[in-house]
Amino acid sequence: MDIIHILDLIGTFVFAISGIRVASRNDMDIFGATVVGFVTAIGGGTVRDLLLNNHPITWMADITYPLVILAAVPFTFVMGKRLNNFSKTLFIFDTIGIALFTIIGMEKALSLGLSPFIAGLMGMITAVVGGVTRDVLCREIPLIFRKEIYATACLAGAVIFYVGLEFNLPNNLNYLITTAFIITIRTVSIKMNWSLPKMKKV
Amino acid sequence: MDIIHILDLIGTFVFAISGIRVASRNDMDIFGATVVGFVTAIGGGTVRDLLLNNHPITWMADITYPLVILAAVPFTFVMGKRLNNFSKTLFIFDTIGIALFTIIGMEKALSLGLSPFIAGLMGMITAVVGGVTRDVLCREIPLIFRKEIYATACLAGAVIFYVGLEFNLPNNLNYLITTAFIITIRTVSIKMNWSLPKMKKV
Amino acid sequence: MDIIHILDLIGTFVFAISGIRVASRNDMDIFGATVVGFVTAIGGGTVRDLLLNNHPITWMADITYPLVILAAVPFTFVMGKRLNNFSKTLFIFDTIGIALFTIIGMEKALSLGLSPFIAGLMGMITAVVGGVTRDVLCREIPLIFRKEIYATACLAGAVIFYVGLEFNLPNNLNYLITTAFIITIRTVSIKMNWSLPKMKKV
Repeated sequence: MDIIHILDLIGTFVFAISGIRVASRNDMDIFGATVVGFVTAIGGGTVRDLLLNNHPITWMADITYPLVILAAVPFTFVMGKRLNNFSKTLFIFDTIGIALFTIIGMEKALSLGLSPFIAGLMGMITAVVGGVTRDVLCREIPLIFRKEIYATACLAGAVIFYVGLEFNLPNNLNYLITTAFIITIRTVSIKMNWSLPKMKKV
Repeated sequence: MDIIHILDLIGTFVFAISGIRVASRNDMDIFGATVVGFVTAIGGGTVRDLLLNNHPITWMADITYPLVILAAVPFTFVMGKRLNNFSKTLFIFDTIGIALFTIIGMEKALSLGLSPFIAGLMGMITAVVGGVTRDVLCREIPLIFRKEIYATACLAGAVIFYVGLEFNLPNNLNYLITTAFIITIRTVSIKMNWSLPKMKKV
Repeated sequence: MDIIHILDLIGTFVFAISGIRVASRNDMDIFGATVVGFVTAIGGGTVRDLLLNNHPITWMADITYPLVILAAVPFTFVMGKRLNNFSKTLFIFDTIGIALFTIIGMEKALSLGLSPFIAGLMGMITAVVGGVTRDVLCREIPLIFRKEIYATACLAGAVIFYVGLEFNLPNNLNYLITTAFIITIRTVSIKMNWSLPKMKKV
C-alpha cells in the first residue's frame, strides 16, 4: 500500500464527509446520509469506469473504499459541529482528493489508449461527478456549476500531468507537481476570490 | 414461469404504479408518467446490471417487463382515486417487490463471484434506486433518505438470505424466509412508527 | 463525411446550445454551462451505448462531437439574445436532431439483434435523455414530461422507420421519410397546440 493509495483513501474519506454534511443539512436520516456520502465519494470513479467499460468497478473490487466510506458516517456524527474547526484540513485533503482523482482517471483512460483530450475529460469526470450527484440528490443546483475554480483546476492539472508524461518525468514526481499545481490554483483562486464569468442569460 | 418470476412481475407492476402516481401529482402528462413509471420499475435492476457488467440488461432481454410496465399506465388511469382503497394490497406487493429485488440482485452478484458485502449492496441498489430516481425526476428529496425503515429492511434481509445460503437452505425456503423477514420488519416499523435517527446538522 | 453525419453534428451543436441557454438562466458560470451543454448533447447517446454495451461510447471514439459541443459555448456567448431571432432555425435543427438521434439509436439496437420494440425505446432514449438530464441538473421537472408532443413524435417516427426497413426502402429514403414525418408531427402539434392528456392526480 503505497503513499498514493493512502492519499486516495483519505480523499475518499473526505469526499464522503462532504456528502454526509450536505445530507445532514437536508433533513436526511442516517441511511440517506450514508448513501449521499457513498455517491459523493465513488460517483465520479463509477461513471468513469462505466464510460471506459473498465470492470470490475474500482470500489467493487477493492472493499477498502466502501469500508472507508462507512467509517465516515460515525466519524461525522461524533465530530458534529467540531468539524468546522478542521475546515482547513478538510479543504486540503479535499483538494488533494480532486487532484488524485483527476490523475487516476486520466491514467486509466490513457492506459486504455484514449486520446489525451478524452483522458483529461475522464480525469475531470472522476473528480467532479460525485459532488454533482450529491447536489442533485439534495435538490441543489450543483455548487461547482455556480462558483469556485474547481473543475477548472482539475482540467489545468490534467494538462500539467500530460506535459509531465510527455517529458517522461518519473511518475511520483509528476504526481507531486500536478497535485501541488491543483492545490495552488484552488487555494489562490479562493484567496483572491476568483471565479469564472457567469453566462449571460440567453 | 415459476412463482418467483410471477411475483417479480407483480412487484414490477406495483413499482410502476407508484412511479405513475408520484408523476401524476407533479402535473405530468401521460408520456412523463409512463417514463417515471418505467424508471421506477426498472431503474434499480438497470443500475445493478451496468455495475455488474451483466448484459443484456434484464428488461431488454425479457420483453415481459416493459409490457407489464406499459400495462400499469392505463390501469392506474382507469383505477384513479380508487387505488386508495387498495393501499394495503399495494403496500404488500410493494414490499414483496423490494424483498425479491433484493434477493435477485444479491444472487446475481454472488453468481459473479462477488463478496457477500458487495452482493448485499447490489441487492439494496436493485431495490431502492428506482424509487430514488423517481423522486429526483419529480424534484423531491428521495423519500427513503428521509423516513421509513425501507432500505434498512432490504439490508437486513440480505444478511438473512446470506445466512440461509451458508446453511444450504433449499432455495425456495430461503426466498420465503427472507421475504417474510423483510415484510415483517417493514410492517412492524410502520406500525410502531420506527424511523432511523436523523443526522445532526453538521 | 456524408450528409447524415453532418446533420447529426448540427443536431449535437443545437442540443448543446439548448443546454447552455437553460444553464445561463440558472445563474451558472461558464464551466457549468459547458457541462450542461455537454450532457444535453451527448447524454442520450451515452445512456443508449451503456445500455447496449456498445463500446467505445460514440463521442469518446469520435472527437468531433466534443469539439462541436465546446464550440457551442463561445457561439452562444457571442450570439446572446440575438439567438431569439433564430428561434425558428434552431427549432428546425433541434427537430432534425431528435429525428436523427431516434433513427441512429434504433439502427444501433437493431444491428445488435434487439427486437423492434426495444430498438424503438433505444431510439427514443437517444433523443430525449439529454434534455431530461439538462432539466434535472437545472432543478426543473423535465419539460418533455409536462408538455409538447416530443418523445411521442420520436416513437411515431420509430414506427415509420421500422416499416420502411420491413419494406426494404433504400436507407437514405427511409431516413428522409422518417425525419420529414417527425418534423411534421412536431410542427403541426405546436401549431395546433396539441398536447398529451395530463395524468389525473391519483
